[in-house]
Amino acid sequence: MVGGQIPEEVFTEIVKNKYSRVGYVNCFNCLEGRSSFVTKPPIKTFLDELAGFFGGDRAEHTFGNRSAQFAVFNMIAKETKRKGLVLVDSLCHYTSTVNIENVGLKLEEVPHSGYPNYEITAENYRKTLDELEKNKKKPALVLLTHVDPYYGNLVNPKEISDVVKEYDIPFMLNAAYTGGIIPINMKKWGVDFLCLSAHKSMSSMAPLGYLVTNYEYADKVFQTSLQTPGWTKRAFGKKIPNLFGCSIGGLPLISSMLSFDSVKKRVTEWKDKLKEIQWFINKFEDIGEGTMLLGQNPHKHHLMHFDTPLFYELSKKHKRKGFFLAKALEKKGFIGIHKGMTKHIKFSVYDLNKKEKKELLDAFEGIVKA
Amino acid sequence: MVGGQIPEEVFTEIVKNKYSRVGYVNCFNCLEGRSSFVTKPPIKTFLDELAGFFGGDRAEHTFGNRSAQFAVFNMIAKETKRKGLVLVDSLCHYTSTVNIENVGLKLEEVPHSGYPNYEITAENYRKTLDELEKNKKKPALVLLTHVDPYYGNLVNPKEISDVVKEYDIPFMLNAAYTGGIIPINMKKWGVDFLCLSAHKSMSSMAPLGYLVTNYEYADKVFQTSLQTPGWTKRAFGKKIPNLFGCSIGGLPLISSMLSFDSVKKRVTEWKDKLKEIQWFINKFEDIGEGTMLLGQNPHKHHLMHFDTPLFYELSKKHKRKGFFLAKALEKKGFIGIHKGMTKHIKFSVYDLNKKEKKELLDAFEGIVKA
Repeated sequence: MVGGQIPEEVFTEIVKNKYSRVGYVNCFNCLEGRSSFVTKPPIKTFLDELAGFFGGDRAEHTFGNRSAQFAVFNMIAKETKRKGLVLVDSLCHYTSTVNIENVGLKLEEVPHSGYPNYEITAENYRKTLDELEKNKKKPALVLLTHVDPYYGNLVNPKEISDVVKEYDIPFMLNAAYTGGIIPINMKKWGVDFLCLSAHKSMSSMAPLGYLVTNYEYADKVFQTSLQTPGWTKRAFGKKIPNLFGCSIGGLPLISSMLSFDSVKKRVTEWKDKLKEIQWFINKFEDIGEGTMLLGQNPHKHHLMHFDTPLFYELSKKHKRKGFFLAKALEKKGFIGIHKGMTKHIKFSVYDLNKKEKKELLDAFEGIVKA
Repeated sequence: MVGGQIPEEVFTEIVKNKYSRVGYVNCFNCLEGRSSFVTKPPIKTFLDELAGFFGGDRAEHTFGNRSAQFAVFNMIAKETKRKGLVLVDSLCHYTSTVNIENVGLKLEEVPHSGYPNYEITAENYRKTLDELEKNKKKPALVLLTHVDPYYGNLVNPKEISDVVKEYDIPFMLNAAYTGGIIPINMKKWGVDFLCLSAHKSMSSMAPLGYLVTNYEYADKVFQTSLQTPGWTKRAFGKKIPNLFGCSIGGLPLISSMLSFDSVKKRVTEWKDKLKEIQWFINKFEDIGEGTMLLGQNPHKHHLMHFDTPLFYELSKKHKRKGFFLAKALEKKGFIGIHKGMTKHIKFSVYDLNKKEKKELLDAFEGIVKA
């Protein structure tokens, strides 16, 4: 959860602002009927800058990554009269499968390579697309989860998009775990839709996300309302149905705007951060018998998932059972481990400095030796 | 926007909490895979209490009132294979019409009585339902906007629901401007779906809303995911597709939980608050030629919309044109008037005490005399 941590100075700024007590403060200066048009604070130019930073042409803020995905899936659902098919990687986040179900589309999964590396490859995308073609099924959209939520595996979007483009299908990248952490360039990578989580990886309050797209798809996914109800003939021509009219924003959006400079900066430091993460993984694998990183090794992301049979053995003897580990770490000042898990544990050391990483290793070693 | 103002002590509590810098802090203790099941903080019992407070059986938090409405419309869309019709009042909020458009449903409007009172009546609901019946059209859902966003008119939901029940149609109440302000009882009023805006009327950070329903509809609108993708066979049986899986919550939800006691209390004080609002309206209508309240008079809500031709005349002579009024009020310490408007203005004095209401009247009078 550390990728979403709000810089202290941003929090201070929000708290001292006299309007912060109104939860949708950015609506004060809404003259054009949609929060993304607001110029005071400069939401409009911020969204343009954000789109450019990720190599896209247009961005809208959303109620989180799940709402960004929803907008794209719903557009596809309308275009295909709710009969379309979406091809997803088999490590995609639940918000992808559940949103696809929700808009009435079908889905197919690209297999991964299984235990212990769980690799998603361009080859498997091609195989699955070929099989679908044989059965006369053509996906209306292909999704790749840039880094998956289970093992923290990173897939090169360019390799997948090169395949997808051969089949002439729009390509969507779920960057919930990477946008704001790792450099991203939609144009270079052939990405048509980029879904971001501001509260997961862009140092923002929840709930907030962004959908970034290119000129080709902007008017489709951000299509404004076309309806004029029969009796009043009211029209809401600035509102975007796929975004529920307007995504409001509120303090989460303001926090994201205030955090953006620090987010841009930390993305440039990614290589150094990754080296420290790999150093941590090597040390952690030595803490005891059977400890092993799952997923890609060398690892390419800060989300780590380890097999830890030794903690499972310890939990059997403990009165708190599986909850002992999270509790023991909490006592040593570390939070974030999924409570109750011991056989395998998933966590991140992103944003911990070297000294803190060492302290965390010591904490784990202390638990093993206790 | 005053109904959404966060009590100072709530803001202080949030700021001093050591976890507040993580924007989705409530996910820390999520053991069951949905934020509404979380017991630390006690989200689960809070939602039960909230449902009870509004006379409902089950509540889920949402990304604002618009997402609460979306869940119901999307349920209807699925049930009717995207062919259903929703009957709405002609003063409904744009989020109703735009969400209906978005899920692929049709809509029909119940006419209002026009200038200057714009009344929505049970008689007109009946007329419209009868006309639809003649054309062999039966709405799958009927919506009433409890207090409308244009004139602040209050409609008695029981009168409408009595009609709607004769036609055997589920009844939804949009209480964005009343839930958290005025006493509401879904059971007594025959309301099947209650949509609330926490940031508009329940002293919460944005974006946050609630959907409250009864036992009859809870399992339908909050239907959990039924999908198992072909290759992984992953199931997400706790996630609710109509809520995008899980509505997260984050700091807005925590702020709403902290504000709830003060919201419950102020609802019991509504009669006294309304008397002061009516007093203000009488005084305001005297500030100059042509000043007249639109909508119901005597008024039944804090949202007021006045014809103010005198400010329009003044704006013509002013270098700032229409913007002079909001600016002049801002200089006197009052914000919230829609910038650029003078011919008719819409605002609220809810939460201003008697002394502040007098000061605001003085401010307006000062502008007239200047």
